[in-house]
Amino acid sequence: MRFTLLAEDGAARRGRLETAHGTIETPVFMPVGTAATVKTLEPRDLEALGARIILANTYHLYLRPGHERVERLGRLHRFMSWGGAVLTDSGGFQVFSLGEKGAGRDKGGPGLVTIAEEGVTFRSHLDGSRHFLSPEKAILVQEALGADVIMAFDECPPSLADRAYHELSLARTQRWLVRCRQAWRELEDRRAADGAAEQYACNLFGIAQGGLFGDLRARAIEEAAALDLPGYALGGYAVGEEPVQMWEGVARDAPRLPREKPRYLMGVGTPEDLLAGIAAGVDMFDCVLPTRTARNGLLFTSRGKLVIRNARHADDTRPADPACGCHTCRTFTRAYLRHLFKAGEILALRANTLHNLHFYLTLMQAAREAIAAGRFEAFRRERLAAWREGEEP
Amino acid sequence: MRFTLLAEDGAARRGRLETAHGTIETPVFMPVGTAATVKTLEPRDLEALGARIILANTYHLYLRPGHERVERLGRLHRFMSWGGAVLTDSGGFQVFSLGEKGAGRDKGGPGLVTIAEEGVTFRSHLDGSRHFLSPEKAILVQEALGADVIMAFDECPPSLADRAYHELSLARTQRWLVRCRQAWRELEDRRAADGAAEQYACNLFGIAQGGLFGDLRARAIEEAAALDLPGYALGGYAVGEEPVQMWEGVARDAPRLPREKPRYLMGVGTPEDLLAGIAAGVDMFDCVLPTRTARNGLLFTSRGKLVIRNARHADDTRPADPACGCHTCRTFTRAYLRHLFKAGEILALRANTLHNLHFYLTLMQAAREAIAAGRFEAFRRERLAAWREGEEP
Ligand SMILES: [Zn+2]
Ligand SMILES: [Zn+2]
Repeated sequence: MRFTLLAEDGAARRGRLETAHGTIETPVFMPVGTAATVKTLEPRDLEALGARIILANTYHLYLRPGHERVERLGRLHRFMSWGGAVLTDSGGFQVFSLGEKGAGRDKGGPGLVTIAEEGVTFRSHLDGSRHFLSPEKAILVQEALGADVIMAFDECPPSLADRAYHELSLARTQRWLVRCRQAWRELEDRRAADGAAEQYACNLFGIAQGGLFGDLRARAIEEAAALDLPGYALGGYAVGEEPVQMWEGVARDAPRLPREKPRYLMGVGTPEDLLAGIAAGVDMFDCVLPTRTARNGLLFTSRGKLVIRNARHADDTRPADPACGCHTCRTFTRAYLRHLFKAGEILALRANTLHNLHFYLTLMQAAREAIAAGRFEAFRRERLAAWREGEEP
Repeated sequence: MRFTLLAEDGAARRGRLETAHGTIETPVFMPVGTAATVKTLEPRDLEALGARIILANTYHLYLRPGHERVERLGRLHRFMSWGGAVLTDSGGFQVFSLGEKGAGRDKGGPGLVTIAEEGVTFRSHLDGSRHFLSPEKAILVQEALGADVIMAFDECPPSLADRAYHELSLARTQRWLVRCRQAWRELEDRRAADGAAEQYACNLFGIAQGGLFGDLRARAIEEAAALDLPGYALGGYAVGEEPVQMWEGVARDAPRLPREKPRYLMGVGTPEDLLAGIAAGVDMFDCVLPTRTARNGLLFTSRGKLVIRNARHADDTRPADPACGCHTCRTFTRAYLRHLFKAGEILALRANTLHNLHFYLTLMQAAREAIAAGRFEAFRRERLAAWREGEEP
């Protein structure tokens, strides 16, 4: 994997990430394919949308169909028939959130996620079965899944947890990062010794936590950078804080990440968040927002948000966004999209998903062009103004 | 609309139906798009599958989004962005089945579907609101929807209802047919006087009922044929009788339908049923079976049926049907399809639907070729034998 910085415009960066499964122009948005499928879409749809890298969730795939099965079936790329690049998260985030739910803690039951120095014990949200995940196990599972980019196993505390907890958690996450790197190097060395093709190389990204505490973030970044990993991520944003707190934190932290490595802001965000992140020098983003809200009938447009179920669309023969060139907007009217959504038709979910991902991916393309042209801040102001303006009646 | 008989092979017929929205080679299977969408698919998917005519349900569209709205939005073709032909049923079948459910009769409540000479009063299964449908209203609604083929308003009693009820019902259905024809002619005349384009012409098909009583069916067909309509259908099959009773009934009735008009067997059926119907001289079929069973994880293959959720597919890297050329079989393994289905992923429903419709449509294409080659019966025997054989382990 190779990352090349092509242009800078203030803190914003235009880059290129070359992987064994294709070249990715950055800044890039990665659609989320939790269970090895970006919900409602086929791989050919993702290709047509211009997606070159997607995210899959280790926690979900570890539980079903199981990482060993995915490995037997040709790892993620062959399993889901996707020729582009894949990034997997470490499973940590879901262990802490879904594992708690599975254990019924959100319903007042005992919390059955146990964090120890060695790793985390949790129950499956599917069947309540008991599992253990550690830095070493998370790397092993991700290597079996075979993603191009794999993530360090960390704890992601709520942004608004107190400083004492953030310090305790961060220190452990930093020790886990060292263990992740060790496990990753051993697996990659063993694989190289076995003569495995370069195309199966997994590239480990480190994650810096630290909540909203600038000094903790700075320390986490410094320690992680010393490990000289292929890339770095900011975790622990968009987990409860106000957007402006996140924007300030990212603007402060992202420029501290190694300049020559790809920078990834995990789980973010809204279109506004993406522009703020790009302005801060972030190269990679992922979020369920465009796909999940699509399934809830919320469409992102050049003039802001559109709630397709609203009665005022019932006789509207315009496309969802007259300025959009996606297949949905070229084919269907708002009236028809509303009808599909109200009737509970599956096509509504797919048509909306195609549109929202097109919106996100073309936004990133336009951002890349603006950075290359040295006018990213003007571009950002124009887009924010148009979104706030709302649509014509 | 013009129907041309191209070849005959025993009672089986190879024909061509020219509509204002394209030419349809017969025998043809029409995918069902109840709410103006063939569930999970876009119009471009239907085109790629080779579908040239689909069915939409008047009852559902009348209730939501309403026939007047569909008419305002450019009638069905523009509403759903479908360039091929459309056939609508009359709504009668759903009024009697879903209307009863909406009224809670299946839960022991009072039956709120009232049949009178004038028409039928029923309650919406969506919101319980009261509606009235008559022969004249059914034609009016279908003309507003703008299908290429519209169906007469009839009652479709259970096959196994007693003879007295069938006689009573059939006599009324026959009187309704005369009224349907009258209403259709008046609307078409008025439309012609208004200078409406030929592309909006609706062609009324008559329906012959009569249950499993050969003499009732013969009388119904004779009376309907005397009305010289653009096409004729057999209704009231696949509504509770054994398959062999249907096959015998269709083999007896279909050849009695006017030879020079298209013949349509409504709501049928399994692959075996289609071959039996074609052998009897049927030209058109529709059924929810391939699309509904796809969403339940049942796939039709060249070696019989495949239940994709079965554990034995978990590590199977073969396509659902190695003999199938559909996009699903060219792209996904059984292992992946099973994973999608078990994980409740929407892509499972779409991938399965693409496969099953491909199976149905290529079966019809092969049947057309067999008739043209004068070897339909041999073709039928071969297919039935292969399906019964089951798949290799
Ligand atoms: Zn669009
Ligand atoms: Zn197939």
